[in-house]
Amino acid sequence: MDVDSRLNMTRLFVDCALMDHALIELNSGQSHYLSSVLRKKNGAELLLFNGRDGGFLGVIETTGKRSLLVRCKHKLLSQTRSSDLWLIFVPIKRTRMDFMVQKATELGVSKIWPIISKFGQVKQIREHKLRANMIEAAEQTERLDLPEIGKFTPLQIVLDNWPKDRVLVVCNETKSEAGNAHSMLHLNRKLTKKAAILIGPEGGFSALEREQLQVHPMCENISLGPRILRSDTAAIAALSIFQSNFGDWYKTPEFLNDEKQN
Amino acid sequence: MDVDSRLNMTRLFVDCALMDHALIELNSGQSHYLSSVLRKKNGAELLLFNGRDGGFLGVIETTGKRSLLVRCKHKLLSQTRSSDLWLIFVPIKRTRMDFMVQKATELGVSKIWPIISKFGQVKQIREHKLRANMIEAAEQTERLDLPEIGKFTPLQIVLDNWPKDRVLVVCNETKSEAGNAHSMLHLNRKLTKKAAILIGPEGGFSALEREQLQVHPMCENISLGPRILRSDTAAIAALSIFQSNFGDWYKTPEFLNDEKQN
Repeated sequence: MDVDSRLNMTRLFVDCALMDHALIELNSGQSHYLSSVLRKKNGAELLLFNGRDGGFLGVIETTGKRSLLVRCKHKLLSQTRSSDLWLIFVPIKRTRMDFMVQKATELGVSKIWPIISKFGQVKQIREHKLRANMIEAAEQTERLDLPEIGKFTPLQIVLDNWPKDRVLVVCNETKSEAGNAHSMLHLNRKLTKKAAILIGPEGGFSALEREQLQVHPMCENISLGPRILRSDTAAIAALSIFQSNFGDWYKTPEFLNDEKQN
Repeated sequence: MDVDSRLNMTRLFVDCALMDHALIELNSGQSHYLSSVLRKKNGAELLLFNGRDGGFLGVIETTGKRSLLVRCKHKLLSQTRSSDLWLIFVPIKRTRMDFMVQKATELGVSKIWPIISKFGQVKQIREHKLRANMIEAAEQTERLDLPEIGKFTPLQIVLDNWPKDRVLVVCNETKSEAGNAHSMLHLNRKLTKKAAILIGPEGGFSALEREQLQVHPMCENISLGPRILRSDTAAIAALSIFQSNFGDWYKTPEFLNDEKQN
């Protein structure tokens, strides 16, 4: 099977182990989607993935509106890992949050971490909703893993327990302070192997929170330009710029390999 | 009035000329928003802009649910222009298109241009809808101008009439071809004073369209990494990377000024 026909297969995330010959019962949403929306018949091929076992060729054995059985044939793609890049954010309202989580998954983050900040407007996180958005985006974007979901935790606790080897890139949308922040392009490349991008609430961080961030040893303040971006735009913009400069988007140019050896 | 209190004012786009002492009647949507949602009273201050005359201090003189009068006091902000950067795209379905137009406006494009491509799924453009999304985003993001809207035109006609001094950055989401495309970071900086970013339809361009793009003298193919991005994600990612590297996000570093003089 060539790459192109493989890429045109419907991709489906399943929650069970994948191995040769396994018979997998899809849930009712997936069954309905395949049989009623896509009108797949017995014998139709799918690409199955579960975030850990790679991508498997699946063939529909029994179709039904409520449940559908797929036979797992053999592994087509080895499991891959996305960049070690976290997105930490103060939750925003429904549609834009769905959107942000989908886009972050498309852009290859390894962890999505909602945190509690003084001016945050959303008090509760529906993890199953976050996960559904990630699955939809992973199916769409051809990644084989799902981001991890961090526990909804106050900013201060996140900072107090921050790993010593991970840079925390803070996107500063406060106009008066952003003027002093530098561009993400000037981040020290040596710091960017493990990174997290932090997007504040739309009202901005509180004075206390800003101070906590300023004194944190792993914090790097960066600016996202002269306009005030909404949280979801800021998240997508920051992730795109990071990935295109330091992430897995392109092979490392020669001169950086040289740098590493020195 | 200091910068911070000015920034906290409600910003409102109006469609009429702005000058000292003008009395402006807001439309019913704006009047309802100000009086019923924000509960603004007589004497409340606003920042008014119309895309050409700068930002004016306005003061509410008469409140009403259906119509509201604002007195234009004096100019607070000089008119600014966004970067000379176009977004050209094959329209996508409703929510994600609204989203893409809002985000492109936030990210500072000067023109939004929907085009017709063989595999495009949307056959009609509602210009007033595009414009409403731009106004919402401009009010939000503190820009004082609105992007121009290009006429819904077939790709071939766009290419045949392409300006000789504008680079056309084509975001190639076809996996097999993207491998050969270079990163946007490697664009020749001299080419990027006037630029357009072209996002194809989700099904990809047709073979003929791809050929037309390949042979076009102003076309630069770039890749947006190893994952397949949806059109709206690709647009936001490409605009962010472009703006952070070549656009108006940061002051030009010294070494580039040197380059220009040579």
